[in-house]
Amino acid sequence: MTSQSAQKCAVLESQLVGRSVVTLDDLSTDHIRLLLAKAQYIDEDMKRVAHTCDGRILATLFYEPSTRTRLSFETAMLRLGGRVIGFAGAQSTSATKGETISDTVRVVSNFADIIAIRHPKEGAALVASRAASHAGVPVINGGDGGHMHPTQTLADLSTIQARFGRITDLVVGLCGDLMFGRTVHSLIETLCRFGNVHFVLISPDELKTPRYVIDRIEASRTCDYEEVHDLQDVIGKLDVLYMTRVQQERFFNEDDYLRLRDTYILDPAKMKLAKPDMAVLHPLPRVNEISFDVDADPRAAYFEQVRRGMLMRMALESSLLGDSLPGFSESDECKEVTE
Amino acid sequence: MTSQSAQKCAVLESQLVGRSVVTLDDLSTDHIRLLLAKAQYIDEDMKRVAHTCDGRILATLFYEPSTRTRLSFETAMLRLGGRVIGFAGAQSTSATKGETISDTVRVVSNFADIIAIRHPKEGAALVASRAASHAGVPVINGGDGGHMHPTQTLADLSTIQARFGRITDLVVGLCGDLMFGRTVHSLIETLCRFGNVHFVLISPDELKTPRYVIDRIEASRTCDYEEVHDLQDVIGKLDVLYMTRVQQERFFNEDDYLRLRDTYILDPAKMKLAKPDMAVLHPLPRVNEISFDVDADPRAAYFEQVRRGMLMRMALESSLLGDSLPGFSESDECKEVTE
Amino acid sequence: MTSQSAQKCAVLESQLVGRSVVTLDDLSTDHIRLLLAKAQYIDEDMKRVAHTCDGRILATLFYEPSTRTRLSFETAMLRLGGRVIGFAGAQSTSATKGETISDTVRVVSNFADIIAIRHPKEGAALVASRAASHAGVPVINGGDGGHMHPTQTLADLSTIQARFGRITDLVVGLCGDLMFGRTVHSLIETLCRFGNVHFVLISPDELKTPRYVIDRIEASRTCDYEEVHDLQDVIGKLDVLYMTRVQQERFFNEDDYLRLRDTYILDPAKMKLAKPDMAVLHPLPRVNEISFDVDADPRAAYFEQVRRGMLMRMALESSLLGDSLPGFSESDECKEVTE
Repeated sequence: MTSQSAQKCAVLESQLVGRSVVTLDDLSTDHIRLLLAKAQYIDEDMKRVAHTCDGRILATLFYEPSTRTRLSFETAMLRLGGRVIGFAGAQSTSATKGETISDTVRVVSNFADIIAIRHPKEGAALVASRAASHAGVPVINGGDGGHMHPTQTLADLSTIQARFGRITDLVVGLCGDLMFGRTVHSLIETLCRFGNVHFVLISPDELKTPRYVIDRIEASRTCDYEEVHDLQDVIGKLDVLYMTRVQQERFFNEDDYLRLRDTYILDPAKMKLAKPDMAVLHPLPRVNEISFDVDADPRAAYFEQVRRGMLMRMALESSLLGDSLPGFSESDECKEVTE
Repeated sequence: MTSQSAQKCAVLESQLVGRSVVTLDDLSTDHIRLLLAKAQYIDEDMKRVAHTCDGRILATLFYEPSTRTRLSFETAMLRLGGRVIGFAGAQSTSATKGETISDTVRVVSNFADIIAIRHPKEGAALVASRAASHAGVPVINGGDGGHMHPTQTLADLSTIQARFGRITDLVVGLCGDLMFGRTVHSLIETLCRFGNVHFVLISPDELKTPRYVIDRIEASRTCDYEEVHDLQDVIGKLDVLYMTRVQQERFFNEDDYLRLRDTYILDPAKMKLAKPDMAVLHPLPRVNEISFDVDADPRAAYFEQVRRGMLMRMALESSLLGDSLPGFSESDECKEVTE
Repeated sequence: MTSQSAQKCAVLESQLVGRSVVTLDDLSTDHIRLLLAKAQYIDEDMKRVAHTCDGRILATLFYEPSTRTRLSFETAMLRLGGRVIGFAGAQSTSATKGETISDTVRVVSNFADIIAIRHPKEGAALVASRAASHAGVPVINGGDGGHMHPTQTLADLSTIQARFGRITDLVVGLCGDLMFGRTVHSLIETLCRFGNVHFVLISPDELKTPRYVIDRIEASRTCDYEEVHDLQDVIGKLDVLYMTRVQQERFFNEDDYLRLRDTYILDPAKMKLAKPDMAVLHPLPRVNEISFDVDADPRAAYFEQVRRGMLMRMALESSLLGDSLPGFSESDECKEVTE
């Protein structure tokens, strides 16, 4: 049995080598399962994998600031034994001299073995992945414009997996700005690929889930949803509560904002109504949508989510580079991928 | 005897593991003696300690620029075998999205084993140390607002120790802006903890040492002071001359500034009046308060002070991480801590 | 024979240890030949040299942005096993506090074993090299003002060497802005030191090669040149075509610019007239002076040039540090330096 699972892992691993991940559609559900298993394996003993990517170089090309995401990509590579080059902020780059993203990436792919890019323009990561393919260098999308931010979703999935041992058969509430929050859309779409989730979509009418996301849920044989206005009414039945920020500038007038705001703030009073093992997620940064008093509650999972993001990036970076995690193919985690 | 001193060092070392250093009050005089001894030990043979912090990650969170300080913290970690992540300048961070320092630090403490922070607001380092304590990650204050900048003082002490073999029984002159210079206040207060220093406070009336620092000297059984206006009159009796910058904007009118300025500029003419083994310190950067002609004088210790700062940060970082310096417990330096 | 060539390499190597490279006049033609040989040797097997500079630290002091150059210096050190500190952009430095370059470099030379500097002011690298010499730390000029940018020229030479197996006995065309392009001047001057090159200088009258560069060619016994207006007329006889950007702001009026612009744009139509093994170089970043359609042409060498730049920086950094490349002294490449 072990040898069969090891073989399946090996096949999946070989498919990932050199692949760019611009959206989560670049990964099959089996690939995602493999990455979840690897993150779990890495978490058990970080030292075991500390030299997996010795001699490798990651370039982080961040055309707009995102401390959390950049440091997560970088730490992931450092904890695997690799090194990092890059820039943070377009003002430090040749972009100011009129160079295209494509040229910058072709240049950098002479230096780096793998690239993580973040850019304000939609489509930038796809352009980058094509430019880097000349040198066989994989590109990971660290967020481009309104598009997907695939490693955030991987972090979310890994956090749910760590809390519940599964990412299916769950009631998942999403609360706040469901219209503009790209992380929410990506999470819903990805959970639909695995199936068996009941979504509770909690938002004001002004910030409802867009039609194409609803269509995605309806197209799933095993997922369904309900739309509600009030977090308090539904919090008691949720396994996962995914909070997002409600930005004042999204509202037509201040009165509406002030009236609705508190409905979408999570505080200890609302937590009292929730299940004892509910997990609270948030992509961060938060402003005031989760009260600081909730941080000490063991159900608060948003800082753990940061750690899970790093572990998934370790799994992803090593996989795209084709650097096997020592001992993984004989591990229980590898075995579980097959089941 | 060796075993007793090794035991005392071990006790002191164990007290430092995981501790944050926001001000120098977070360290006992014995801890400071231990760090001075470690810096000396490191200086003898940098190669011996080159893998002390293998696998460790330092995060430098610099919300305002300070090349010298940031590079010193980073080099210290690299020379110990560790690695570095971080940012320099608030514009590259999520702070621009309204995230609190506390949240940023909780996020980063998922990535790093130790954090050095610099922030324009007083109290930021304390807030950071509390946030990082959730993950057991120690924080070192790299300067916050008008408050203490403890590693600068450690650099100063180590330089004096290297020049005189002691940090007591000295005549220490401090010259220039003694009112606003936080490094000066911190150095005086720390030397008072060790005792037996005669301070010569050299400044214009407009920039005299504040009362609370004078109180600190007077509270010491073994330290005393005198206040004078003219460097030239007293330079002949100083063991240490600590220069600071006199900023024009501190004066009420330009006439006063022009009249007084030259009194507080150190040049070869004044150096001729000084003792042959006097040590000139300066926290840097300097503008014109030390003439460039003094740089070649062997009594100029301000560039050596930079190196001493790096050595003390190596001692501090490895100690807070609980990473023992190979061979230190059997060394003469360890023995001297006990005496 | 091997032992003689090894001895000659060893002599050349010993001359480079600790040397700063502000202009290419800091290197003899034999030194340049040695560096070309080392780059070639490194390229054959990067893993063999991956620990050449273990424990070393490079500081990149970039007072103005230049992603390509900075990342190339940094990657070079990382691929040799060393580590990197530094800054990119003057706003992150103590320069904002009025510190001189000289003081900053003296400070940093306490941290780093070697420094690469880029600065908008002519002469900055020379000042830096003098300041760093107090600590025996070599400085490499990464570009200062209108002056030489020596490692760009080393990259150019290495690319030509890789394509033709030689840097002499070639017809070298230089096209575009030959008046202000410092990389072009530096390349011409350096090729003249090796001799036997026929230069074809292709530019509008407004942007002709300056007299002092022409003088340099005329002073060479074995080099000569011709000046022409039209790339199309001469492309057929070139071995190397070095393209540069023609900036609109260099022209007196827009009509002239529009009339001339297309003459200096390289496109597939012009490439049809060129030799089958011509090499197209460009210092990058390009704007529109080379059509993107040319990128796939095997004669396009400008991205390879980026890789060659990194290899030459590996050769240079290790040489100035005195870190021998394992196995090099017994290699064929070392032997060829003597011939």
